Amino acid sequence: MSDEQVEQQEDAAAEVDDRLLRLAADFENYKKRAARERDEYVTFANERLIKELLPVLDDLERALQAAAEHEEAKLEEGVELVHRSLASLLERNGVEEIDTEGTFDPHVHEALLSQPSEAEQGSVIDVVQKGYTIGDRVVRPARVIVSE
Amino acid sequence: MSDEQVEQQEDAAAEVDDRLLRLAADFENYKKRAARERDEYVTFANERLIKELLPVLDDLERALQAAAEHEEAKLEEGVELVHRSLASLLERNGVEEIDTEGTFDPHVHEALLSQPSEAEQGSVIDVVQKGYTIGDRVVRPARVIVSE
Repeated sequence: MSDEQVEQQEDAAAEVDDRLLRLAADFENYKKRAARERDEYVTFANERLIKELLPVLDDLERALQAAAEHEEAKLEEGVELVHRSLASLLERNGVEEIDTEGTFDPHVHEALLSQPSEAEQGSVIDVVQKGYTIGDRVVRPARVIVSE
Repeated sequence: MSDEQVEQQEDAAAEVDDRLLRLAADFENYKKRAARERDEYVTFANERLIKELLPVLDDLERALQAAAEHEEAKLEEGVELVHRSLASLLERNGVEEIDTEGTFDPHVHEALLSQPSEAEQGSVIDVVQKGYTIGDRVVRPARVIVSE
């Protein structure tokens, strides 16, 4: 190997070394930024939902005021309005009520107790607490009573 | 340079090249995982909040039932309960009401109009819509009327 070749090879090795160092530094920076961004995304996601909740709180406070002023019709109207806005907020965020018609499904139902009934064995006969999903995920199972 | 030295140098260069490739591959994998995790974090953060909201919806539905059955006292009680749970949910998530006592502050207040009044010029005399912050961030400014 000539001196020139040796020099070329050394230069090439130095360049690869340099690229390695720069890549390692980029990687470190990326990791830090990714962690920061993840935190920010959570904050923003929560903030968006909370922003949507504020009108629900406003409506609720107006309903309370109607109650304090003994305006029963207005109170009832107010509560219906609050319910509609909260339900539509949840719907917009992909929340769906779990179906409880028919047979007990352990994936989405939780049996609180079983009772003798005229219904088919293993079918849901009463819902104690409604359940909800977001997409494929069960946020809360429906708590039900099952026919035995 | 001896043949042995040349060989050593070639081996060293190959090893650095190899490390470079592996680091680049790690970096790519990390980027993909970070993006996936960021999405998951947002989903989980939203899901946590939504899970907290479900009991509020339950209470609201009970209040509506009381209204349907003309149980006015129970309806009013129910609405108060819903209000307490929603307010405490927001509080747990760092939401604070914006103070509207005293002088108008353009950072957290939005002036809807100004009116002549006995109060000092530039002070807040009425709140049309409450405002809220999370930490340092204004989620919604307080909409106010200012003394002119």
